[in-house]
Amino acid sequence: MADTRTNAGVDNISTVRKMYTWCKPGDRLITLLSAGNLATTQTVVGLLEEHMKAAGERNPHIMEVPSMFQAARLIGDTVREVIKTASDGGAQSEAAFGATFILGGQIAGGETRMFLIYPEGNFIEATDDSPFFQIGEHKYGKPILVRALDPDMSFEMAAKLLCVSFDSTLKSNLSVGLPLDLQFYGRDSLDKGYEKRFEASDPYYKAISDGWSDALRAAFDSLPDFKRD
Amino acid sequence: MADTRTNAGVDNISTVRKMYTWCKPGDRLITLLSAGNLATTQTVVGLLEEHMKAAGERNPHIMEVPSMFQAARLIGDTVREVIKTASDGGAQSEAAFGATFILGGQIAGGETRMFLIYPEGNFIEATDDSPFFQIGEHKYGKPILVRALDPDMSFEMAAKLLCVSFDSTLKSNLSVGLPLDLQFYGRDSLDKGYEKRFEASDPYYKAISDGWSDALRAAFDSLPDFKRD
Repeated sequence: MADTRTNAGVDNISTVRKMYTWCKPGDRLITLLSAGNLATTQTVVGLLEEHMKAAGERNPHIMEVPSMFQAARLIGDTVREVIKTASDGGAQSEAAFGATFILGGQIAGGETRMFLIYPEGNFIEATDDSPFFQIGEHKYGKPILVRALDPDMSFEMAAKLLCVSFDSTLKSNLSVGLPLDLQFYGRDSLDKGYEKRFEASDPYYKAISDGWSDALRAAFDSLPDFKRD
Repeated sequence: MADTRTNAGVDNISTVRKMYTWCKPGDRLITLLSAGNLATTQTVVGLLEEHMKAAGERNPHIMEVPSMFQAARLIGDTVREVIKTASDGGAQSEAAFGATFILGGQIAGGETRMFLIYPEGNFIEATDDSPFFQIGEHKYGKPILVRALDPDMSFEMAAKLLCVSFDSTLKSNLSVGLPLDLQFYGRDSLDKGYEKRFEASDPYYKAISDGWSDALRAAFDSLPDFKRD
């Protein structure tokens, strides 16, 4: 799941899709989520798309990399190149051009894999012990993930958990905003899964957002009050 | 409530009290909570204590300032001075010496007041609309405060809420750690209120920490699952 808020200061916010998907049915489904400097993330995606079109390009393009690991390397190299170019120009620190990505998907012959790609271009992979990644404004929404995530969850329960986690962030931080983009990928389907955009008026999202406040208060009330000793 | 974890990297952590209280029964109760660079916060407190002892000191000392507003100014000026001195010495950025404070209490003739003091030495005051402050690693613990805080809460419920909020942070971030120091101040008492230190073995804290996981899962289960349309 990805939000769509981008900002250059609180007086300059826009809605931009931060979830990109490349799909060739039967061969690959690759999804990239981005956080950070919008010029950097859009240029990275732009270069990945260009590489798809240009003949004789040195790098393999994302529709032709042989594995998810190679896709992560390709994106990491591209991020590093984009940030280096932007940083060479002027006085700004590299941090200002930073961007972080989550890459997930599957390529025929390999497993479903998920990577977190850093602005430096290196990356880590999700494991059974740490099965989820967050990027961007991640702290507000982490506690509920830590407590409620269960790798055996159905898609439907995972979607509920993502709504609760994002809603916790939305209630606390202006840099994250609706609508939210959701995508499911079914292992070994090698095709696009279910996709949905939650707008502010979405009845399910509203039910979760309103219901969570009440449920949280009830949960809080169910715990024993402190007693002075 | 304040935690007691301080670190100079994850391989160098210690326990340090971050809650300081100055009390003259019938006249004033002033409590200061600190976050940030330990050298800065300890020097600020050290200077406040020195000012208490030195005769002919230019600044009024904290046991003699006539109002909580003047106490906030005194501490703000002291913070700015300490950070400026540390920053003059070398190549480090000012951010590395930063510290933030919450100041609360009451001085005879005035109301109970609470301030958040920035590293720059300026400060803001709590209001009916924004009745709480957090400093340091605040994001993980904010969502539950936003949802469950009620200004009419009893001390006992507020202590429960603080335990839940801190526990959310403790579960996600190594820079915050037990034990936790709690202090109540009763309006117009002008004296020390109830104080308690929650150690890791504290039965109430454990009941909250364990119970909150179960309560949160139950709350989560009570919400409707997402349905694909």
